[in-house]
Amino acid sequence: MSRVSRRRALTLAGVGAAGLAGAAALTQVDNEPELTAAAAATDAVAFTGANQAGIVTPAQDRLHFVAFDVITKDRERLIKLLRDWTAAAARMTAGRDAGTIGAVNGIPEAPPDDTGEAIGLPPSGLTITVGFGPTLFRDAAGKDRFGLAAHLPQALEPLPKFTGDTIDDTISGGDIAIQACANDPQVAVHAIRNLARIGMGAVSVRWSQLGFGRTSSTTTGQATPRNLFGFKDGTRNLKAEETDLLREHLWVQAGDGPDWLTGGSYLVTRKIRMLIETWDRSPLAEQEMIIGRTKGTGAPMGMTGEFDEVDFDSVGADGQPLLATTSHVRLAHPHTNNNARMLRRGYNYVDGSDGLGRLNAGLFFIAYQRDPRKAFIPVQRSLAANDEMNEYVRHVSTGIFACPPGITGTDDFWGSALFGQ
Amino acid sequence: MSRVSRRRALTLAGVGAAGLAGAAALTQVDNEPELTAAAAATDAVAFTGANQAGIVTPAQDRLHFVAFDVITKDRERLIKLLRDWTAAAARMTAGRDAGTIGAVNGIPEAPPDDTGEAIGLPPSGLTITVGFGPTLFRDAAGKDRFGLAAHLPQALEPLPKFTGDTIDDTISGGDIAIQACANDPQVAVHAIRNLARIGMGAVSVRWSQLGFGRTSSTTTGQATPRNLFGFKDGTRNLKAEETDLLREHLWVQAGDGPDWLTGGSYLVTRKIRMLIETWDRSPLAEQEMIIGRTKGTGAPMGMTGEFDEVDFDSVGADGQPLLATTSHVRLAHPHTNNNARMLRRGYNYVDGSDGLGRLNAGLFFIAYQRDPRKAFIPVQRSLAANDEMNEYVRHVSTGIFACPPGITGTDDFWGSALFGQ
Ligand code: HEM
Ligand code: HEM
Repeated sequence: MSRVSRRRALTLAGVGAAGLAGAAALTQVDNEPELTAAAAATDAVAFTGANQAGIVTPAQDRLHFVAFDVITKDRERLIKLLRDWTAAAARMTAGRDAGTIGAVNGIPEAPPDDTGEAIGLPPSGLTITVGFGPTLFRDAAGKDRFGLAAHLPQALEPLPKFTGDTIDDTISGGDIAIQACANDPQVAVHAIRNLARIGMGAVSVRWSQLGFGRTSSTTTGQATPRNLFGFKDGTRNLKAEETDLLREHLWVQAGDGPDWLTGGSYLVTRKIRMLIETWDRSPLAEQEMIIGRTKGTGAPMGMTGEFDEVDFDSVGADGQPLLATTSHVRLAHPHTNNNARMLRRGYNYVDGSDGLGRLNAGLFFIAYQRDPRKAFIPVQRSLAANDEMNEYVRHVSTGIFACPPGITGTDDFWGSALFGQ
Repeated sequence: MSRVSRRRALTLAGVGAAGLAGAAALTQVDNEPELTAAAAATDAVAFTGANQAGIVTPAQDRLHFVAFDVITKDRERLIKLLRDWTAAAARMTAGRDAGTIGAVNGIPEAPPDDTGEAIGLPPSGLTITVGFGPTLFRDAAGKDRFGLAAHLPQALEPLPKFTGDTIDDTISGGDIAIQACANDPQVAVHAIRNLARIGMGAVSVRWSQLGFGRTSSTTTGQATPRNLFGFKDGTRNLKAEETDLLREHLWVQAGDGPDWLTGGSYLVTRKIRMLIETWDRSPLAEQEMIIGRTKGTGAPMGMTGEFDEVDFDSVGADGQPLLATTSHVRLAHPHTNNNARMLRRGYNYVDGSDGLGRLNAGLFFIAYQRDPRKAFIPVQRSLAANDEMNEYVRHVSTGIFACPPGITGTDDFWGSALFGQ
């Protein structure tokens, strides 16, 4: 039987093939090795802070998202889980194992406390972000499940049904959501898988989604990626540097609702199937009219640079507005929505094929905001009613979660203030 | 309306934000720009050669695999498709678009000949590898669909049913398979999606699989990755440098079967669901016994280094062999299988959850070999009968395809020799 730690393997990897001779020694190591220079030089994102990481953090390339049903009825068990999760998340985001990989506490029959597939991999920018769904506070019958009903924020209501919605309930909602983002998908998958393992008996995976490529920039330094319609996406996103706007539109402020959520944010998820085969048959000019930006540069219609201001007024030779009244950008823009802003953080997905000869592909839309009633909901209403793009998309899953503020001390845990601890 | 090419956007990206002012000019470019220094400096894999790329090519990190049903009945249409595909694959592996992104041949109503989501991305090591399934040669009723039945290799038979198989036919088989591997998943997805687009009306997507992380090394220089059981995978794989072994075990040789396949290889795919939650509950010692290697270093049981020879004979204090008789490594090893070898090239996958509270995760197993009757089939028989690992895995999809040799000239296309052209 051997023991090994993620960080130690990493150090070993750094010394090259010659280090393999030392492998036997490695398998005897019993204590979590200290942070070494080699490991420290990697790309870890700080786990603690006033706000949770994984929101304004420069959008990582890959996503593994999971929504859990809580199956325990025991409040203390739930609190213990949140404590254990927080500790494991702190370890994993630092590039460490979720727990000991070898015999646990000297008991050889115990299963390892880490599943091992991230051994040797650096932190890879991993962030783990948690949110609580409305059903954690009270169930469908209105029952207060864990003594939390009094702390339910008014804004944390299941999203309304929008025109055209084709939602599959089995992949929607959930009591607790966890978003793992990393630049290496193996690291993101490892994180969710280990949190699910730790939660065994207390929670059950309700649904889960992999995203292979980010569709947003969340800092001004990041290049704008492209979605599966082939367009740049995230150009006019809220950005980490816009601290005044983040205060106004992203972070829940004192007095907005229950105190436990101050410094947190509301997370909305929408899995949006994109009918890419149909899209691919439409001419470039039509695609650009539907989005309201050019495909090559991402410039707004009538402008030349990606970051030029959107021009609502200019008309073309035909007397029609250059930015069509049914274009996505016009309908989603703050001007049209009472200055609504949100931080988008979505990912492209492909889930195999659909049994009808087509790829099952689309956008796993993620948005964070201070109040969904002033951001996602009105914007989606406007899109659902008039967006020409609707012909090419189907919303198949929906979720809303209240994400508590960041972890601030070693005793702190996800939801500590919610549980009054 | 704008025009843009993948390579030109890439060059532009290279010059930074200042280049955005030139974007208007860019959108007017009508001809495919020449290769620039910036683009040439990226990681393209040669498309042409005696064998297809994507087999011994250093295993890229990400996979998008698709199997198509041919829906046209017209042999000439099929040949044209294979020609068009070959041309598009040559372009995309060089980091170019599949075709013009702007108005095609000056017709503004025509849809773009590339979908755009890879604009600005480098080649990313993209390889595109094609294989023909038995059903392309004759259908279930034995009918010769395209005048190819006489060229059906004897070894290209649907795989037998193995003990314990739980195969889903709807995600198995297929007339033509295409494997796209790249270090950027967006590039791999873009490739398959554009080939599917080009094939519209002639082929239909039967099934498709994304793989987020490689589970094999195919060259001695590559670090061994880990599968979702947390173990190093690919240690004792066939490697690109072992040219004598590749001749013996990987590439179809003259006289093996029909001439058109000489220089090709047989591709076997198996989607293997891994019951990771059950695995995660078993002790480390048991996991290591099942695999036959240690989890930390990947050394064979009783040895110290990952690349040490497997030791079949040593016994432990209890008199039992250190390498259990039911261990995966013992049962899969060439010693136990009449010296059978194959080149494994699999990928980890997570396809959301299974509706029963668990992640739907596993290994998309891919193996290339000279003759499946001497490699995959006997090895899988041995595993299916005795592998302790069977308790933790379920084979849910199966496929076999004959991959023609590489593209050797500008007029050459995938399957040219098969179609006698
Ligand atoms: C598959 C579905 C969608 C696609 C393909 C898509 C694509 C795009 C693209 C290409 C842009 C322009 C670039 C940018 O500023 O980021 C954009 C902007 C935007 N989208 Fe979407 N989007 C989708 C769904 C949604 C949804 C569901 C919402 C929210 C309800 C949304 C809200 C926005 C907002 C707020 C903007 C910025 C508008 C501006 O300020 O000019 N999008 N989207
Ligand atoms: C989920 C299923 C599987 C898992 C998790 C798995 C895992 C592993 C691991 C960890 C090794 C040891 C490292 C190495 O030498 O690569 C290995 C070796 C090997 N596996 Fe698998 N494997 C699976 C399925 C298969 C299948 C279906 C086959 C072929 C029928 C196969 C054939 C082999 C071979 C030939 C070796 C090398 C044995 C040797 O030469 O020592 N594996 N596998």
